[in-house]
Amino acid sequence: MAKRVSEADKQREATDKALKQLGALVYDQINQGEFPWVMMQSRSIDNIQYDPQVRQYILGDRMVKRHSRNIKHIRPFTQLVWTAWFARELVRQRKTSTLREAYYSARGQRDIEYTDQQESDSIITDLEVSLNKAREDFGIFPEERSAIFGDITIEYTVPGYEGRRTNLTDHPDGIMVGPAVTSSEFIETTANKVIVVEKGAMFTRLVEEQAHKKFNAILIHTAGQAPRSTRSIIHRLSKDWGMPVYIFTDGDPWGVHIAQVICSGSANAAHLRGLTAPDAKWIGVWASDIIDYKLPTENLTEFDKKRLTELQDDPRYNEDPWKKQIELFIKIQKKAELEAFSRYGLTYIVDKYLPEKIGAIAPDS
Amino acid sequence: MAKRVSEADKQREATDKALKQLGALVYDQINQGEFPWVMMQSRSIDNIQYDPQVRQYILGDRMVKRHSRNIKHIRPFTQLVWTAWFARELVRQRKTSTLREAYYSARGQRDIEYTDQQESDSIITDLEVSLNKAREDFGIFPEERSAIFGDITIEYTVPGYEGRRTNLTDHPDGIMVGPAVTSSEFIETTANKVIVVEKGAMFTRLVEEQAHKKFNAILIHTAGQAPRSTRSIIHRLSKDWGMPVYIFTDGDPWGVHIAQVICSGSANAAHLRGLTAPDAKWIGVWASDIIDYKLPTENLTEFDKKRLTELQDDPRYNEDPWKKQIELFIKIQKKAELEAFSRYGLTYIVDKYLPEKIGAIAPDS
Repeated sequence: MAKRVSEADKQREATDKALKQLGALVYDQINQGEFPWVMMQSRSIDNIQYDPQVRQYILGDRMVKRHSRNIKHIRPFTQLVWTAWFARELVRQRKTSTLREAYYSARGQRDIEYTDQQESDSIITDLEVSLNKAREDFGIFPEERSAIFGDITIEYTVPGYEGRRTNLTDHPDGIMVGPAVTSSEFIETTANKVIVVEKGAMFTRLVEEQAHKKFNAILIHTAGQAPRSTRSIIHRLSKDWGMPVYIFTDGDPWGVHIAQVICSGSANAAHLRGLTAPDAKWIGVWASDIIDYKLPTENLTEFDKKRLTELQDDPRYNEDPWKKQIELFIKIQKKAELEAFSRYGLTYIVDKYLPEKIGAIAPDS
Repeated sequence: MAKRVSEADKQREATDKALKQLGALVYDQINQGEFPWVMMQSRSIDNIQYDPQVRQYILGDRMVKRHSRNIKHIRPFTQLVWTAWFARELVRQRKTSTLREAYYSARGQRDIEYTDQQESDSIITDLEVSLNKAREDFGIFPEERSAIFGDITIEYTVPGYEGRRTNLTDHPDGIMVGPAVTSSEFIETTANKVIVVEKGAMFTRLVEEQAHKKFNAILIHTAGQAPRSTRSIIHRLSKDWGMPVYIFTDGDPWGVHIAQVICSGSANAAHLRGLTAPDAKWIGVWASDIIDYKLPTENLTEFDKKRLTELQDDPRYNEDPWKKQIELFIKIQKKAELEAFSRYGLTYIVDKYLPEKIGAIAPDS
């Protein structure tokens, strides 16, 4: 396939511009003798709603104003301005950081006060909302845990590696998804689909059985709930490269929700776009798979049952397969892990289960 | 440096041979009209002792016999024989698996009974003890979470990648340590030391600041307690390649113990060799660093305090810096994370702290 237009530099410039505008706004307000303030969409629960058109949670129209004239707002306002400065430094110096480092940096020489990291994390989200950018755009990443493997050539954009191309089948243990992979350009690929699994063990199994060749697939390991950077990669492969995405998780309420968050995002990220893959398909382990494949199971715990009931109240679970499978989990009171297929031999999952499930959804693939 | 003699094939052959011998032993016993049995060192706590010569925990001389004539032993004996068969299949087919897959495989068509995975894990350890081999030799790996980065060229030995060489600076997010890296040959390196950190965020920081170049180091990220495969890599770099190893962990009892396990192993692995690096140095974050560097701290929890007292009862903590630092943690009642150095800016840890600490121990490096 042809090379796509480079996005990394464009995005960095746009982020830099947005941060500068925020600073300029505050300066202008002060110059005009005003107490500075910032407007942003409210993130309170009653302003978060599921949008069936966009197929993800979004923020409603209600706005809040952080006003330095208000004694209660001075603290978060100052924190926000500091965080914007910190973010700008990261963007300018082309460095990355973490939520935790941001918190400790604030406690440094500038003595910005935070009670705990949660307060700092929340201000970083405020900055995301104010600028309509993800914290990854500011270079603030979570600890990387997820991994990718498959025949896709990427081009790094991080300092010291600019323009360096690499193929993601180079390392049979997989490539970690950190700032470098996340900010890379996708150059070309022979893959025509994405297979997502929630566990490293299953990821290693798929690599070992050459599932990337058998299925012409890019393999992604989310390590539990997919970090945002991993979700943004799945989004790009789904949207920009038009690849169908198949998600395999443990057959329990937690696995179900891992799949759902990849498809439609989380309420926490209602202010962000570019993290969802609404056309992605959750195709296992279903409650009906537990029956059909006679899988070894464990009983649902009280905690599992409570979680299933919660999921039923979530509008995103009103459609099949979600609805039907959740009802079936509640009926059979059982759960099963992806590894449970090992009862039929280690390769069964690649030889039988995945082809059957993917084939049922996409007969021609 | 010159190429080392290949070890991977040799090891696989030795493991195959040991498994065959175990099978032959059982066959011979049956042929001679005996109820088959297996001897192994006892793993009960009173047979585990710290050996100051070997500088790790070892098993004592007490042996136990698993005898199929004993009704209570039939179950674990059968499980052990099945596990040996499963391990042999992995070795023959050059596949890898996980503890969890081994458990589910047992529950498959052969209907070997296990109450839970713990029982299966314990039998796998029995097999390790019986054969004096690590489960990684049988191809049974934990879920990979740790990572490596630095100028070292390795040669893969896993199927499909045999003879393929790669340099571990290829991917700026780091290379995951899974079965492939663990079983690779180390071909050549310009590095002359190893820096180990317990957290992905700090690992990413070190890569970004090019710590591998500044310190001529191979960087390793353990992701908390270092998995065995990561410990075996540290062992090889320390022992076979003569590299000093410097370990940086959070400044709390958990970080202290992560460092200690890398140095001298765990009681759980008292039956294994090749996983320790007794000459490795734990060089931070010390309690004295918290004072000297005026780090942001948190108070020790009751749980932290209890853990510190436990560590004081462990013979491995009788020497400095362990002894002195544990006493100081108890005295100051504070702990600090590696990220706490961000208070002095993101690069402080690479520009100041690491050079000072490494320099204090190895002035010429």
